[in-house]
Amino acid sequence: MQVAIIGVTGYAGKILYQLLSHHPYVSNINLYGHEDGTPHQYLLDPSIQEYVSIQPFDAATIMANNDVLFFATPAGVSTKLANPFIEHDFPVIDLSGDYRLQDINQFEKWYQKPAPSPEALLKTNYNLPEFDTPEQTYIANPGCYATATLLGLAPLVQNHLLDNETIIVDAKSGVTGAGKQPKSSNQYVHANENLSLYKINQHQHIPEIIQELQTWDPNLAHIQFSTTLLPVDRGILATIYVKPTAAFQKLLANNADTLKTIYQRVYQTKPFVNVYPPDQMPDLKTVVGTNNCLIGLTYNPITNVIMIVSVIDNLLKGAAGAAVQNFNQLFNFSETSGLPMTNYNL
Amino acid sequence: MQVAIIGVTGYAGKILYQLLSHHPYVSNINLYGHEDGTPHQYLLDPSIQEYVSIQPFDAATIMANNDVLFFATPAGVSTKLANPFIEHDFPVIDLSGDYRLQDINQFEKWYQKPAPSPEALLKTNYNLPEFDTPEQTYIANPGCYATATLLGLAPLVQNHLLDNETIIVDAKSGVTGAGKQPKSSNQYVHANENLSLYKINQHQHIPEIIQELQTWDPNLAHIQFSTTLLPVDRGILATIYVKPTAAFQKLLANNADTLKTIYQRVYQTKPFVNVYPPDQMPDLKTVVGTNNCLIGLTYNPITNVIMIVSVIDNLLKGAAGAAVQNFNQLFNFSETSGLPMTNYNL
Amino acid sequence: MQVAIIGVTGYAGKILYQLLSHHPYVSNINLYGHEDGTPHQYLLDPSIQEYVSIQPFDAATIMANNDVLFFATPAGVSTKLANPFIEHDFPVIDLSGDYRLQDINQFEKWYQKPAPSPEALLKTNYNLPEFDTPEQTYIANPGCYATATLLGLAPLVQNHLLDNETIIVDAKSGVTGAGKQPKSSNQYVHANENLSLYKINQHQHIPEIIQELQTWDPNLAHIQFSTTLLPVDRGILATIYVKPTAAFQKLLANNADTLKTIYQRVYQTKPFVNVYPPDQMPDLKTVVGTNNCLIGLTYNPITNVIMIVSVIDNLLKGAAGAAVQNFNQLFNFSETSGLPMTNYNL
Amino acid sequence: MQVAIIGVTGYAGKILYQLLSHHPYVSNINLYGHEDGTPHQYLLDPSIQEYVSIQPFDAATIMANNDVLFFATPAGVSTKLANPFIEHDFPVIDLSGDYRLQDINQFEKWYQKPAPSPEALLKTNYNLPEFDTPEQTYIANPGCYATATLLGLAPLVQNHLLDNETIIVDAKSGVTGAGKQPKSSNQYVHANENLSLYKINQHQHIPEIIQELQTWDPNLAHIQFSTTLLPVDRGILATIYVKPTAAFQKLLANNADTLKTIYQRVYQTKPFVNVYPPDQMPDLKTVVGTNNCLIGLTYNPITNVIMIVSVIDNLLKGAAGAAVQNFNQLFNFSETSGLPMTNYNL
Repeated sequence: MQVAIIGVTGYAGKILYQLLSHHPYVSNINLYGHEDGTPHQYLLDPSIQEYVSIQPFDAATIMANNDVLFFATPAGVSTKLANPFIEHDFPVIDLSGDYRLQDINQFEKWYQKPAPSPEALLKTNYNLPEFDTPEQTYIANPGCYATATLLGLAPLVQNHLLDNETIIVDAKSGVTGAGKQPKSSNQYVHANENLSLYKINQHQHIPEIIQELQTWDPNLAHIQFSTTLLPVDRGILATIYVKPTAAFQKLLANNADTLKTIYQRVYQTKPFVNVYPPDQMPDLKTVVGTNNCLIGLTYNPITNVIMIVSVIDNLLKGAAGAAVQNFNQLFNFSETSGLPMTNYNL
Repeated sequence: MQVAIIGVTGYAGKILYQLLSHHPYVSNINLYGHEDGTPHQYLLDPSIQEYVSIQPFDAATIMANNDVLFFATPAGVSTKLANPFIEHDFPVIDLSGDYRLQDINQFEKWYQKPAPSPEALLKTNYNLPEFDTPEQTYIANPGCYATATLLGLAPLVQNHLLDNETIIVDAKSGVTGAGKQPKSSNQYVHANENLSLYKINQHQHIPEIIQELQTWDPNLAHIQFSTTLLPVDRGILATIYVKPTAAFQKLLANNADTLKTIYQRVYQTKPFVNVYPPDQMPDLKTVVGTNNCLIGLTYNPITNVIMIVSVIDNLLKGAAGAAVQNFNQLFNFSETSGLPMTNYNL
Repeated sequence: MQVAIIGVTGYAGKILYQLLSHHPYVSNINLYGHEDGTPHQYLLDPSIQEYVSIQPFDAATIMANNDVLFFATPAGVSTKLANPFIEHDFPVIDLSGDYRLQDINQFEKWYQKPAPSPEALLKTNYNLPEFDTPEQTYIANPGCYATATLLGLAPLVQNHLLDNETIIVDAKSGVTGAGKQPKSSNQYVHANENLSLYKINQHQHIPEIIQELQTWDPNLAHIQFSTTLLPVDRGILATIYVKPTAAFQKLLANNADTLKTIYQRVYQTKPFVNVYPPDQMPDLKTVVGTNNCLIGLTYNPITNVIMIVSVIDNLLKGAAGAAVQNFNQLFNFSETSGLPMTNYNL
Repeated sequence: MQVAIIGVTGYAGKILYQLLSHHPYVSNINLYGHEDGTPHQYLLDPSIQEYVSIQPFDAATIMANNDVLFFATPAGVSTKLANPFIEHDFPVIDLSGDYRLQDINQFEKWYQKPAPSPEALLKTNYNLPEFDTPEQTYIANPGCYATATLLGLAPLVQNHLLDNETIIVDAKSGVTGAGKQPKSSNQYVHANENLSLYKINQHQHIPEIIQELQTWDPNLAHIQFSTTLLPVDRGILATIYVKPTAAFQKLLANNADTLKTIYQRVYQTKPFVNVYPPDQMPDLKTVVGTNNCLIGLTYNPITNVIMIVSVIDNLLKGAAGAAVQNFNQLFNFSETSGLPMTNYNL
């Protein structure tokens, strides 16, 4: 296949390029910018001094020369550029947040930008690859925090085992989550030897998490969700605290393995999600460099709190890796094609 | 005053030595080991090539030559060594956990070591300097996680404003919290670029937190408390989630400043505790190097969750700094004597 | 004394403010901006929520209300602003590079900016406080790399013990050396888990190092000097390689302590410079947070190379600390007044 | 092929396992310990919860069931265990230093351990894969510092373009270079926010560097070589300073591209060595995760110093990657089989 990427100069775009370069069903990658202009050369990989050519944006050319397009662009870009692709039902996988929220008011509230048109939204799908199947050819790829949180909560929410009023997610992310543009929040001296909370009750991944949770349990109305910046390059660790329903509490009290059993049942067929043995918690470094999501589980009978730890690499499973999963799904390739399941970490 | 330290070779002991070296009411510091033997020289500060002499342990000598003794020793040491000081009502400030728990069974459950005798415990006090006043001359200095958590919760628990079943503390600590002895958990490659949970529902600071909270609200039975290792040298950041009582919820709904007002009222007379403006969160780096505790507050009306962020330097306010505060209190020195309130960070 | 600072919002300016705040001979600090305008409030220390007032720049007001002025400004600022102070012989300590080079051509070559006027330069002094004494009231404070390098080389160059053609300085610096303005080189992801060389043979501290070395040995013409960015906040470690003269080589061969003896003789009266025992090398962390310069020495008889390791805190001894040393010297205060000689590191 | 690894629990052994797992000509990997005993299970990759079985050491079994053996063991182990393999000319690739030095006295001086027998050494080869070809089936794989240094110097030493008395190598390494066993030097608090020199003039890679350099230029007698510990997990950056011969100096003065041309000529056929454009320097992060060696070059006509920067991943090109290169060479596989040439870094 011929694939197009817009946004290779960002973090997720670069990782996406590298994944697709080694993908067994991709024969060629064409790179495009956000704007008109002339082609230019870009040093993508200094290690092998690899320069790539970035073409100006032109929807017709992109559709003529490619089988699929990936947007790895900042918020607001695909809202402006995607209409021709949507009109022609041209396959698109959009790593940005632009088409994730079906409710225009929610989008404008959380993103503080103009939303896509309702007509466009009707022809797009939010697609968490473990649980969704694309009905449209325009796929909104999930956000990184959303993926870690949703995979951590899915088995309990889908089976209605939670007191929905008790969900608290304390999520932590590495600095690449803040993007590549130099700014105060991604400076070395700001993040190094530090820990800081940001976007207090205002992170734009909150509404997409709730939207997806509600497809599993319409009674679920909200979650408490906080985001903390870690002094690491990559990785998200979400610590999730919830209380069980009264019925589920009894099951947990009787059988310590109940929690693990429920998660195993859901995830045994999902190649990228691994559930740890009870009371063992995955760490960040184990998952970085892979497309995996690792899940640890513990139940504290004294406080009646279930703690779930969900870790992913924010640039792989949280962005480019999930995009390739969606690509594999859209074109019926094997789900793990071109995706790393182990790393060279120590 | 003449002061004695046992345990200057550990992290907290070194910081304690430095604080006391600059303390206006300390004329001399004598250093002792845990054991018999001969005096030896120890390179305490390579920067100024400062060698200090460490004397063998001898209780009578220590009492004869000093006005107060600090234990900065691992768990289990002061249980063995402290009896003579307790019998003579000799002033001791114990940075270890040995005398923090009044309940012997709790100590043995959480520390997996023999507890001090009930008679000895009767003559000791847990003393969080912001809220307790020593009634005995043997002071059990609070644990680092306990200080961050208790100062974060005090105004709400003391005023019975919480649903006690909802307290969740997601606490994160730098690597110095794991002590100085080389082991797998404090290795560079283990902690660097990583984030890992440890002592799942088993951290030994949990019972002292509950013990102290119960002095404020006897109905409070337990808290959910987790500990995460950060890739930084120093600092604790505790993110605390709680739900208000129904009555307090109404107050919060009516007046966004309620939370701040309550905390300000409690802490305006406490020189080391600073409450941030509403919805602003302190970060770790701002507090490291000081004896301060910084507190951020936010209330989310959608989820009805109060989030409190409490940060301290685990080696100052969490250990040696609190010990000097207790020393100041015990001898009626000004509370801030010899304690840093600002840092040279950036 | 009343002191003025221009540039408190930068790293060195903040540290300078903190040092002067605790200086025994400073009664008041007034802060000014680079430009006209209106006063504004600035959150200088979030830990204690300390806001300070920054006044607009006005030379006459500054001279009327202060006894001395510190410039902690980027290159190019004091060239534009300093003339009134120079004309009135008003005491100034300038932390920037603007008045360090007496040769205008050199300045314009290395800084790529217009140089100060020759008349202004005649009334200014480069002042490395360990070796220079101010003859003028306008003091150009040395650069951070220059201080580490000059203190490492001084005893050998002053005594003509080196083959001048062999000096190689491999200097490494933390990220604060790159300033506070967000840019690609001080981003977290750029510096973290990385090591990179920059300004290859072009660092602007090279000419001031040579200028000062030539006051000690006019025959010295150049040095090989490279700069490497470290993944740490603060600190410079300069590894210096030199070959001895033939005569000195014989001395070194006969007596292993020669090197240490020579350095000790020079530095025994300099309170901030500590020479380590032979073959022991200071590390970065030992010095950060102090105004010290620590020096390690070794001679390899097989290769006939002397290796000198010189470490400083780039923001203290390399900037604000040296400025306070110069301030102390200018006003005949004790050399160590207000300067930290030990740290709270571990 | 069937391959055996002894030492999979160390850093290099784990990376080696991962490389060989994906190697196109390896069908099976068998793991063995250093000692007798019973097989045990080992959690090699927590991400995918992969347990592997480690068999006790038995030379006959290893030879019966495998085509080649890799030692990824600490110094001293293969000296004790390798004799049966050497006697049977069984192919071995030894990542440790035991058989690198042909001179027994040198080995015992630098390693402080008993050397292998002279007979055993006669049947082994030091094999830097870019320049050596195995004449024996027992291959001593080069040390990490040696590889970075030798590849940086080879073109100049092989062509006799240097003043041999002027070679200075300032090499820096990440913490994995210190091994996996917990000790003071690989603790987080020791390495983090720090930079420290170690093994001053005593690093055991010095003699193997000189031994190999002398195969290219027998007149070369020694090098000045220092090692500095970096606060990063992985990577070596060697900054090499040398002066040209008088004849070469003239060439350099006349043509700025001479240096690059010479390196290109040597390395154009070496797939893992990339020479950067003149005056551009590779950084550590660009190379980590690949088997590449990146080389930057600059000549300073003022000081007449050539600076060469050579970077590698100490665990890949510096250990396991080079071992696979040697394996490929020994069995006539394509040189790049199973080796990463690009990374997922940012």
